[in-house]
Amino acid sequence: MGISHSRRKSKGSAAERDLIHKFWAVGWAAVRVAGSGSTQFPSPDILVGSINRKLALEVKATKDKKKYFPKEEISALEFFAGKFGAEAWIAIKFDREKFYFIKTTDLEETPSSFVTSIDLCRSKGLLFESLTS
Amino acid sequence: MGISHSRRKSKGSAAERDLIHKFWAVGWAAVRVAGSGSTQFPSPDILVGSINRKLALEVKATKDKKKYFPKEEISALEFFAGKFGAEAWIAIKFDREKFYFIKTTDLEETPSSFVTSIDLCRSKGLLFESLTS
Repeated sequence: MGISHSRRKSKGSAAERDLIHKFWAVGWAAVRVAGSGSTQFPSPDILVGSINRKLALEVKATKDKKKYFPKEEISALEFFAGKFGAEAWIAIKFDREKFYFIKTTDLEETPSSFVTSIDLCRSKGLLFESLTS
Repeated sequence: MGISHSRRKSKGSAAERDLIHKFWAVGWAAVRVAGSGSTQFPSPDILVGSINRKLALEVKATKDKKKYFPKEEISALEFFAGKFGAEAWIAIKFDREKFYFIKTTDLEETPSSFVTSIDLCRSKGLLFESLTS
């Protein structure tokens, strides 16, 4: 449990670092947020900005075909984005796929959670180049 | 040296946490940036946003009457702010004073650094209530 949690965590962090490099490479500023998930205030994993746009992102990497999100995680992200003046997005990397970016409002809703899949990302998500162009 | 550095650091972090609470209390979103100063990319200590404004802040607390900033620290903050689409500000707490907020462009320049003082803050700085109103 400890190992799988920290492995998952380090995988998430690697994905975050990767994304931050990608954004800077196209001239956007990006930062990791400290203590995301451990403070009393909602906060995204990374915050990205250009002159015209601001993105609050939750960043996920998964070996599964679907990714579930607790409803509180999505509502906290949307709450933060509303206060900060940013768009709320999920950045998700499925194995052997590029990062997809999907708006929280495009996630599918189940009774207990939100969910996205590779198929949903392909139909409603954006690749990095489309998101930033 | 080690102790004074970590004491200074923890004092800075306490000031950052304090500010983050203040911003949330008036309805702005604020986050601490992870690894500020330790990544290859420039980044502020905290990032703050409301619907209309975004602030990139370096946060300092000092027992001295003046605070000096290496020129690279200020130029990195301004570079970040320019890319992110934010205003570049210093938040500084002198002993027994409230936080003052001063724009990087209002700092005084010496041959080797930028500097601010209580007097400069009183004349060109803003208190929290003025900054956020």
